Amino acid sequence: MAKPISVNIIGSGNVATHLLREFLKHPEIHINQIFARKLQNLKEFEDVAPMINDIDLLKPADITIISITDDAVSEFSKKLKNYRELVVHTSGSLDINDLQTEQKGVFYPFQTFSKLNKNINFKEIPILIEATKKENLEVLQKLANIVSNNVLEINSQQRFQLHIAGVLVANFVNHLYYQAGKLLEKNNLSFDLLKPLIMETARKVQNLSPENAQTGPAKRNDKLIINKHLKAIEDKNLNEIYKLLTRNIEETYKK
Amino acid sequence: MAKPISVNIIGSGNVATHLLREFLKHPEIHINQIFARKLQNLKEFEDVAPMINDIDLLKPADITIISITDDAVSEFSKKLKNYRELVVHTSGSLDINDLQTEQKGVFYPFQTFSKLNKNINFKEIPILIEATKKENLEVLQKLANIVSNNVLEINSQQRFQLHIAGVLVANFVNHLYYQAGKLLEKNNLSFDLLKPLIMETARKVQNLSPENAQTGPAKRNDKLIINKHLKAIEDKNLNEIYKLLTRNIEETYKK
Repeated sequence: MAKPISVNIIGSGNVATHLLREFLKHPEIHINQIFARKLQNLKEFEDVAPMINDIDLLKPADITIISITDDAVSEFSKKLKNYRELVVHTSGSLDINDLQTEQKGVFYPFQTFSKLNKNINFKEIPILIEATKKENLEVLQKLANIVSNNVLEINSQQRFQLHIAGVLVANFVNHLYYQAGKLLEKNNLSFDLLKPLIMETARKVQNLSPENAQTGPAKRNDKLIINKHLKAIEDKNLNEIYKLLTRNIEETYKK
Repeated sequence: MAKPISVNIIGSGNVATHLLREFLKHPEIHINQIFARKLQNLKEFEDVAPMINDIDLLKPADITIISITDDAVSEFSKKLKNYRELVVHTSGSLDINDLQTEQKGVFYPFQTFSKLNKNINFKEIPILIEATKKENLEVLQKLANIVSNNVLEINSQQRFQLHIAGVLVANFVNHLYYQAGKLLEKNNLSFDLLKPLIMETARKVQNLSPENAQTGPAKRNDKLIINKHLKAIEDKNLNEIYKLLTRNIEETYKK
């Protein structure tokens, strides 16, 4: 086997945790060091790699991945100003140039990560990479291809738009699940009733376009039902959401 | 084998089509007659049951299922005023008493149906039933249990609220998929990139509550990213949707 790629991980959040869990499955990847301010968040990795909470102890690795809250990335990267090896962030919304390091890159796994969620199939997760130099792009490609079959080079502007799209289909969608669950709870119905519909709605667009998959009163422009629904939705916020999305669906299918 | 349940189907839309496809798989169900104004929509069933487009030719069956557009159900059911057997509708938002027949019931499969979508697993679809008489409830239970493991008796008010919840997690969610796809298209990115995230977001709430599954800038109250996103979203409607849902998520997790 060729020499493994060595990786430093900086951070202890959802993304850092899932990257560590995944990287540890692959002998072609060597976890060099893990840095976090709160090392207690990383207990599950205690025995697998040296942990540090003093950044001056960081040793060279092929790739150092900064996976901390967006707001802190640029400032933190200044501490690695004199570091000679490749440093990347994992953020959808930060530019590659937000890194204040000599060698810059991005390694953005496009998925929703919660620590509680243990079974994530990395093979299918799109990993979006970017680098300013060809040789850095190649090492990122190598790392990404070990864990995923879905690696793509895109620029910071595209990644930013992809992140917005991700907020829509993950965070906003999940919030609609939440609102729907609240409505059922008020009516003594279980959230379980929604699960098959939620899965089927997601499955449908794996093969059909969302346009062809759309159904329901807004698409049919069924004012009678829409008004009955609006009358029945007491929650002020949910009422507004219903109105806005209905209007937007109507406009989409009017033409 | 006991005598099969005999069923008449009225309608040629998405729900009628999927019910027919499913019922035909079960020898315990006998399709007695199919009625539609537009028989050409039902070509795939030509050889399996007598088709009529004159309602006066309808013969008795254990259950007659009216599966037509909500607006038309009540008026149509008047034509069956002198019909003695059980008549049900399949609507989430109509009351059982919207039927103008002697024997009334509801058979509501809680799923999103598109004709194009061939692979639906009925076994897991919740079927919500209602009837005014015990013996009618029993025959509905019998029919529902043949096709699904997930049969529940609920009243018209609960079914109405469940339908609203369904609009949220299916129609509105699908519209967010659509908006996200449009955004990617504008940036020369494929909708395929969203598919794993869409699936994972749906899968997550099969085991976690939506509250525990939530992630993203709105939940973290990350104003920096939120404002960057809002600035970048040119589409007026999408901008409004982003604002409203973000505000609503922030309020949800503030406490």
